[in-house]
Amino acid sequence: MEIKTNGGIASPKGFMAAGIEAAVKYQNRKDMAIIYSEKPCVAAGTFTSNVVKAAPVKWDMKVVEESPFAQAVIVNTGIANAGTGREGMDCCEKTAEKAGELLGIPKESVLIGSTGVIGAQLPMDRILAGVEKLVAAREHSDTAGTDASKAIMTTDTVNKELAVTLDIGGVTVMIGAMSKGSGMIHPNMCTMLGYVTTDAVIGKEALTSIIKEDVVDTYNMISVDGDTSTNDTLLILANGMAGNPEILPGTPEYEAFKEAVHFINETQAKRLAGDGEGAKALVECHVINAASKEDARTLAKSVICSSLTKAAVFGHDANWGRILCALGYSGAEFDPEDMAIYYAAFGKKILIYENGMDAGYSEEEATEILSQPEVQIIADMHMGTYDATAWGCDLTYDYVKINADYRS
Amino acid sequence: MEIKTNGGIASPKGFMAAGIEAAVKYQNRKDMAIIYSEKPCVAAGTFTSNVVKAAPVKWDMKVVEESPFAQAVIVNTGIANAGTGREGMDCCEKTAEKAGELLGIPKESVLIGSTGVIGAQLPMDRILAGVEKLVAAREHSDTAGTDASKAIMTTDTVNKELAVTLDIGGVTVMIGAMSKGSGMIHPNMCTMLGYVTTDAVIGKEALTSIIKEDVVDTYNMISVDGDTSTNDTLLILANGMAGNPEILPGTPEYEAFKEAVHFINETQAKRLAGDGEGAKALVECHVINAASKEDARTLAKSVICSSLTKAAVFGHDANWGRILCALGYSGAEFDPEDMAIYYAAFGKKILIYENGMDAGYSEEEATEILSQPEVQIIADMHMGTYDATAWGCDLTYDYVKINADYRS
Repeated sequence: MEIKTNGGIASPKGFMAAGIEAAVKYQNRKDMAIIYSEKPCVAAGTFTSNVVKAAPVKWDMKVVEESPFAQAVIVNTGIANAGTGREGMDCCEKTAEKAGELLGIPKESVLIGSTGVIGAQLPMDRILAGVEKLVAAREHSDTAGTDASKAIMTTDTVNKELAVTLDIGGVTVMIGAMSKGSGMIHPNMCTMLGYVTTDAVIGKEALTSIIKEDVVDTYNMISVDGDTSTNDTLLILANGMAGNPEILPGTPEYEAFKEAVHFINETQAKRLAGDGEGAKALVECHVINAASKEDARTLAKSVICSSLTKAAVFGHDANWGRILCALGYSGAEFDPEDMAIYYAAFGKKILIYENGMDAGYSEEEATEILSQPEVQIIADMHMGTYDATAWGCDLTYDYVKINADYRS
Repeated sequence: MEIKTNGGIASPKGFMAAGIEAAVKYQNRKDMAIIYSEKPCVAAGTFTSNVVKAAPVKWDMKVVEESPFAQAVIVNTGIANAGTGREGMDCCEKTAEKAGELLGIPKESVLIGSTGVIGAQLPMDRILAGVEKLVAAREHSDTAGTDASKAIMTTDTVNKELAVTLDIGGVTVMIGAMSKGSGMIHPNMCTMLGYVTTDAVIGKEALTSIIKEDVVDTYNMISVDGDTSTNDTLLILANGMAGNPEILPGTPEYEAFKEAVHFINETQAKRLAGDGEGAKALVECHVINAASKEDARTLAKSVICSSLTKAAVFGHDANWGRILCALGYSGAEFDPEDMAIYYAAFGKKILIYENGMDAGYSEEEATEILSQPEVQIIADMHMGTYDATAWGCDLTYDYVKINADYRS
């Protein structure tokens, strides 16, 4: 597997993209994106577990479940089209109809994504004008993918895209991706918006298994603020244009492809966490030697969700009591007298808690580690052989600032 | 039931208290408190559900379970005596021994409470000197109770005490209380530290039932930051000195006493929420017509725990999508197309969401409501007949400031 420089969702064979200004809500910035494949794609996806599902989530669930193929995705930012009732569903249908008409494909093969404020209705005239511009502007190039990845941002500070190549039966296959955060991020199925494209030949069932299994240890292990969005969507589209022998379960090629998808998802998920609203640092909690995989995940996620731990990292304060406390209320059983906690960053690792008490570390060394842009907390549970990792970010003044007045 | 002006834990018959300066961690402020009863008390309590339990929590659990009576409580602030291993347990024993010796009571009838930073060991010389000062200074008066309630504060901005009187079989009985917050508050059994005293005659079993049942709808329904502390303790001591006919389950007197305890606990719990770290407003979520009591509690607590909802209240921003979102990910099932959300404050109530979409309210009116120091969010689930209320606070810059560098 190799990382492709400047690669994104429009890099795999046959995929096109564009990002354009439609003034849905924001002015003078790209706010609509398209992903289009020359050939129909096998599609799989995971969606928010929130009882309140945005209209585009409901639309996409139907397309992924009922349509044999998908061929395009239209995304807008600024307005989430959630809490919009019947009118919101009509907006999805009209958007898909317009895109289908212009692209010469059935509306049932057009996926829709929206992100932004909940409750407002989409300005359909501007959305439909945007679809026209997107269809005209689409192209197969790395820069087109970059444009699309910028067009789906809300409070993100950087766009997040990635592509890798790998060899499947002597044929080079590519996988590209774009994702966006960065508030209301506590995915429970998948993140706010994540898109993966690939030219690999792979069946729908295999693709679905891979994405559903992988999301558990990638997107579902990040949290910015504990709020599971109404719009969480992760989609993967495979158009088969690489012409590789079909990737079948139980083969080494399946494992290699799965590993590449995992790399893509983990990288994008970490980027979302590190670019969480107001974040100054990526906080990684690595739980080792837990009694079960489920316990390991629960413990790791509890630490990166703790407001007090997040605020302590922001203050570069080695307040390990908050980490111990968060492990303790996670719901997993363990013996606090028989476990250890470490801080680590950039190859440096120090023991801070052991045998029920302070391990006598240097505050200066701890503060130095906590001042890095990527901070790792390692909890060794001394219980079994299961590990898990979760990613979050620090809690800063800017998080409060961004969210105290997001709508204005 | 009547509220007693200036009443607190040293107001019921036979109870004494004091608050003194012991310089455990803070200088120039009261930081140790005593509650003492002339006669041995029946004691009941609820404690943190955190797997990591502070030494004083373990000590108190043993006293409440195994000792027939309790007669004194010694509390310090500044250091939590959690994550302190064997040495931490020894500190509790030495403190109880010293207090028992000076008061002429068995060490097994002395309860201990600690609050503050996790991980540091208590300076035992100063703690023991503090116990001496407390025993000498204790007295039966309203002001002594106030001193004690001030001595247990950490980041609280105001002390929290209360007393009520009620008639039991022609005899006036009094109940007093003191509690403290205000960070690491997400009680799951009970709050950080809460103490209730009463001169009523009541058996241990009855007292235990009342406190365990009541905590579910009072202390367990508040949250400041989602972090369940290692030190959560709620204790109730009854010394029987009012001389009323014993309060027995199944009688109107039992119900009246229970109601008075509920009033005390609810009032104190709301005060903790409203005085959460950095808080500018008390946020109350009242869920009505839910399918079950458990659903009602889950929904209400999910809203007051949502960082985004809390930040929106701080910004006086009527961003109801965040409330809908928090209800949606709570885990309770409901139909978002068939429910309603209202904002209310000081008798004014406006409908903001209905039938799956914005109800067309006035932003100006909503902002006015959200600018009040007590904001109510009402969610009408249209599912059944169960109600519940939860209390939290807004998320402010000061919360981050306080917690980014709590230890310095």
